[in-house]
Amino acid sequence: MSNERQQERSEVLQSLRWENDALSLLDQRLLPEETIYLRLSTPREVWEAIRELKVRGAPAIGIAAAYGVVLGAREHSGTQDSWLPEVIRHAEYLATSRPTAVNLFWALDRMKAKAKTLSDTGTPTSEAVQALLDEARLIQAEDESTNRLIGEHALALFEDGMGVLTHCNAGGLATAKYGTALAPFYLALEQGIHLKVFADETRPVLQGARLTAFELQQAGVDVTLICDNMAGHVMSKGWIQAVIVGTDRVAANGDVANKIGTYSVAVLAKAHNIPFYVACPLSTIDLSTPTGADIPIEERHSDEVTFGFGKRTAPQGVAVYNPAFDITPNELVTAIITEKGIIRAPYNDNLKQLFDR
Amino acid sequence: MSNERQQERSEVLQSLRWENDALSLLDQRLLPEETIYLRLSTPREVWEAIRELKVRGAPAIGIAAAYGVVLGAREHSGTQDSWLPEVIRHAEYLATSRPTAVNLFWALDRMKAKAKTLSDTGTPTSEAVQALLDEARLIQAEDESTNRLIGEHALALFEDGMGVLTHCNAGGLATAKYGTALAPFYLALEQGIHLKVFADETRPVLQGARLTAFELQQAGVDVTLICDNMAGHVMSKGWIQAVIVGTDRVAANGDVANKIGTYSVAVLAKAHNIPFYVACPLSTIDLSTPTGADIPIEERHSDEVTFGFGKRTAPQGVAVYNPAFDITPNELVTAIITEKGIIRAPYNDNLKQLFDR
Repeated sequence: MSNERQQERSEVLQSLRWENDALSLLDQRLLPEETIYLRLSTPREVWEAIRELKVRGAPAIGIAAAYGVVLGAREHSGTQDSWLPEVIRHAEYLATSRPTAVNLFWALDRMKAKAKTLSDTGTPTSEAVQALLDEARLIQAEDESTNRLIGEHALALFEDGMGVLTHCNAGGLATAKYGTALAPFYLALEQGIHLKVFADETRPVLQGARLTAFELQQAGVDVTLICDNMAGHVMSKGWIQAVIVGTDRVAANGDVANKIGTYSVAVLAKAHNIPFYVACPLSTIDLSTPTGADIPIEERHSDEVTFGFGKRTAPQGVAVYNPAFDITPNELVTAIITEKGIIRAPYNDNLKQLFDR
Repeated sequence: MSNERQQERSEVLQSLRWENDALSLLDQRLLPEETIYLRLSTPREVWEAIRELKVRGAPAIGIAAAYGVVLGAREHSGTQDSWLPEVIRHAEYLATSRPTAVNLFWALDRMKAKAKTLSDTGTPTSEAVQALLDEARLIQAEDESTNRLIGEHALALFEDGMGVLTHCNAGGLATAKYGTALAPFYLALEQGIHLKVFADETRPVLQGARLTAFELQQAGVDVTLICDNMAGHVMSKGWIQAVIVGTDRVAANGDVANKIGTYSVAVLAKAHNIPFYVACPLSTIDLSTPTGADIPIEERHSDEVTFGFGKRTAPQGVAVYNPAFDITPNELVTAIITEKGIIRAPYNDNLKQLFDR
């Protein structure tokens, strides 16, 4: 494993890419202080990178694991018959890196299915490795293409000179490229449309400060960092014309689960007559979850609030409530922006239709 | 100067008190990790404590300076005629510790006036020093009494079992005792009324986490710390029946300037039909300021946002907006609670009447 310091500025950061026969992966734990790309050339190195949160964001984890399967398939030196079992073993090993990551399993299942087809058709090992690499690249390209489509649909809602607020990080760092909620900002930059972005820092883990502000700044987007509690004040000054956020899950009725604080932003947006948009791929919309009330809210350790950044900032033993997510009810959601277009209320009908198309 | 570690729990913390012929002052810079009372026995030590923010909060600073004058007056060893000029010199020196602190000047002017009366009436030096000490104690006692009255009026609005949210620190640490917004919590405890307090951590400087959570925990109040962006979620769960905050200035029309984030909390409270109360002494209501728009909003250094936890948490050079205060318009304020009672809309008329009484 060797490291390469990224020096260029004003480019859309990529969380990972296949380069010189290895996976080049941005170590997100070091952000925003250092931009280091790790060179990973074995399944074990990829496993460790996922396990140790060097890569985060469901799509990015899935893509990293897919390349991990390629690295494993390439190591094979036995008979052609032993190739498929070995590839499956690598995939199953990689699946243990983050046991609750749905995208991880989805990407690995796809790689295993591809390997099985290649094996069943008697493809020679060296060709099969190349075909697996193509498949991993395809997974990455599909994610990038989905995000560009989301960005294009979202950008149609924005106008030159608008102020747009976002919360947490639904950005390029969590995906192949562009992200979901941040995609329109990158496309606006390409098209010479000026948007003034405000990024909530997003306590307790500060994804807005550490990741969103960072990746937008790197790309040359006009971004201003604020604390979460400044969002209402900034809206009252007339600086915000739209809010756009990502989501972890959309229920069938359009209720939206996203990072804690999203609900407060949605209420504030409504009070200031500012549209509140949610950007996500179709894969995030779960018609089997009827409403937001059916989505469990994970509570996390109090240390994130009281001891987040190398220093104790609250008294020992104080009670803390630390929910990781909240639910924004559908009546606060102006539109949901997907790769297939923009969905508005009534969400129960319109989301169902979207999948029926 | 000697230090004494405070070990007792479940008592209302005092920011300062006269004890064993010296000023005993809680070093607030060390909170919440250490509870150290400094023993200050010269005007210079008091000057340094104010300058170095060991004591904060307008009333507490004024009281500390008043005791500083006593310490100076006591040092006098010349003729009786030279006593008054020397006391005035000490007062003017103490006034340079925090040049913009209005309460500081007010308390020092009161001490100088008292010294002049004592000198004019030919009071012997030793008696005059005792009379100055009595005056400083009176300033402290008046502040404590004002806060108790505010607490009593506020507590009448609360009921046993209620959840109450507060923002920033308008607590005992900023005043002689009890604070303003936190006073009802201490009185509820005395009276066996159970209130469940939620304290916003209050980014960027974390007064809620470091001070409010700390002083309420020390006193034995049921307090839960949350991040600012969790307030809306906690309200949506039905856990909050009232919000109470302090204020830096109330305009004649009832607009309220307070720590950044207060406005967002007020909007969220209204959206959830939760009353939003502001607690303050009459001295904070400024009838010469017509509206909140006439109150300048101080902007502070970006480091508070990007480097607040002993570690850089945002990219180098990122744009930051860091207003210290915001304005909550009068229509979001359910009532203003003063030592003279509870004021409701229309504020222009009712605040004026309060001062005319």
